[in-house]
Amino acid sequence: MVENKKKTTIVLFSGEYDKAMAAYIIANGAAAYDHEVTIFHTFWGLNALRKEEMVPVKKGLMEKLFGKMMPRGADKMGLSNMNYLGMGPKMIKSVIKKHQAMTLPQLVEMAQELDVKMIACTMTMDLLGLQKEELLEGIDYGGVAAYIGDAEEGNINLFI
Amino acid sequence: MVENKKKTTIVLFSGEYDKAMAAYIIANGAAAYDHEVTIFHTFWGLNALRKEEMVPVKKGLMEKLFGKMMPRGADKMGLSNMNYLGMGPKMIKSVIKKHQAMTLPQLVEMAQELDVKMIACTMTMDLLGLQKEELLEGIDYGGVAAYIGDAEEGNINLFI
Amino acid sequence: MVENKKKTTIVLFSGEYDKAMAAYIIANGAAAYDHEVTIFHTFWGLNALRKEEMVPVKKGLMEKLFGKMMPRGADKMGLSNMNYLGMGPKMIKSVIKKHQAMTLPQLVEMAQELDVKMIACTMTMDLLGLQKEELLEGIDYGGVAAYIGDAEEGNINLFI
Repeated sequence: MVENKKKTTIVLFSGEYDKAMAAYIIANGAAAYDHEVTIFHTFWGLNALRKEEMVPVKKGLMEKLFGKMMPRGADKMGLSNMNYLGMGPKMIKSVIKKHQAMTLPQLVEMAQELDVKMIACTMTMDLLGLQKEELLEGIDYGGVAAYIGDAEEGNINLFI
Repeated sequence: MVENKKKTTIVLFSGEYDKAMAAYIIANGAAAYDHEVTIFHTFWGLNALRKEEMVPVKKGLMEKLFGKMMPRGADKMGLSNMNYLGMGPKMIKSVIKKHQAMTLPQLVEMAQELDVKMIACTMTMDLLGLQKEELLEGIDYGGVAAYIGDAEEGNINLFI
Repeated sequence: MVENKKKTTIVLFSGEYDKAMAAYIIANGAAAYDHEVTIFHTFWGLNALRKEEMVPVKKGLMEKLFGKMMPRGADKMGLSNMNYLGMGPKMIKSVIKKHQAMTLPQLVEMAQELDVKMIACTMTMDLLGLQKEELLEGIDYGGVAAYIGDAEEGNINLFI
């Protein structure tokens, strides 16, 4: 780390397509402006890091239930607004395509190419029963201490 | 811009009356304490900037649908909580009146008088099919680069 | 206050169990790393500070209604996600117990022991009809000016 690099640290708590889009657009934008960027995924935001395919792992009943009920990966997330019967997500994906904007999975991929540090919160992984095998490759793992350490030197700190 | 002015930069992502109230109360408060304040309106937060009257503009089908489904202006927004059948918004407006607090449209007007910089995110305007003619006069337009530029020098950065 | 202490200031706007958990985990973590920490409770976030027992106070009709409809204390809050029929909160509390994590009321208690400054926003207390007698002992009261004063010198500023 170069001492004088600017820093952006985002807590992604929300598990919605539009909020995760906003988080990744800001993260990628900041990375393009040469910030050192971290996205700390906690609670429902962890779902943006789930692999799309079913990964066979041993789980307790409650953890299995959470696993079933939560979206498997960025592409499966709902909207924070107008989510009626899945219509909202379809509408958003349709206008994204029309305007040649990037989908959420593309934004996540771009973040990895731009070396955005993607951290999964181990404490909430435990709570929701998510295991490392179920999450994308190349991400980091940490708890609130890692977050505080990153954020306290930051220029832009957001909770999304 | 005086070099040593403090800076507050808020991303208003949410399209709810109470969240937009919080954003504008903080923005106006910071402006009163002589901060240079920017509110960057994106996604559903853009609706706070819509004119109340119907503005005739040409739109594609999907953009027309978004236009219909989203609230036209600050006064039409729902609550993030207790929004049952529009009862929540009525209750909030009733207690605002009773306690002589400011309504959201009044807070937006005050922000303009206090020279709060109000930016509409052009990328999400495209996605949601909102056109400049439909938004309030006297606002600015920009993308994520404008946001990063403002926020990275900021004292208070919030995502609402 | 030692001049060079780092500062974390959190606006807790949301009234959901999981969001309040995230706020208090970050607050307690920052306090453990020797930050001066403030949580400014506004709107629905005030409910985290309500006493569990019914406190007899005189209220207008609208304020009584808000009082009835809002959760009385941290333990009664719903989830921001998967809140179906109260199942989500039960599931979260069950995994918290299983993994020996802290419940929200325990996190609030810990924050008080760690000298996290807990402020209730007087303006929204007025709007929602909450009175000091109904809130926990040992908290502070203030408005947006108090918040700006704390946040503008802060290292970590979040809106949750």
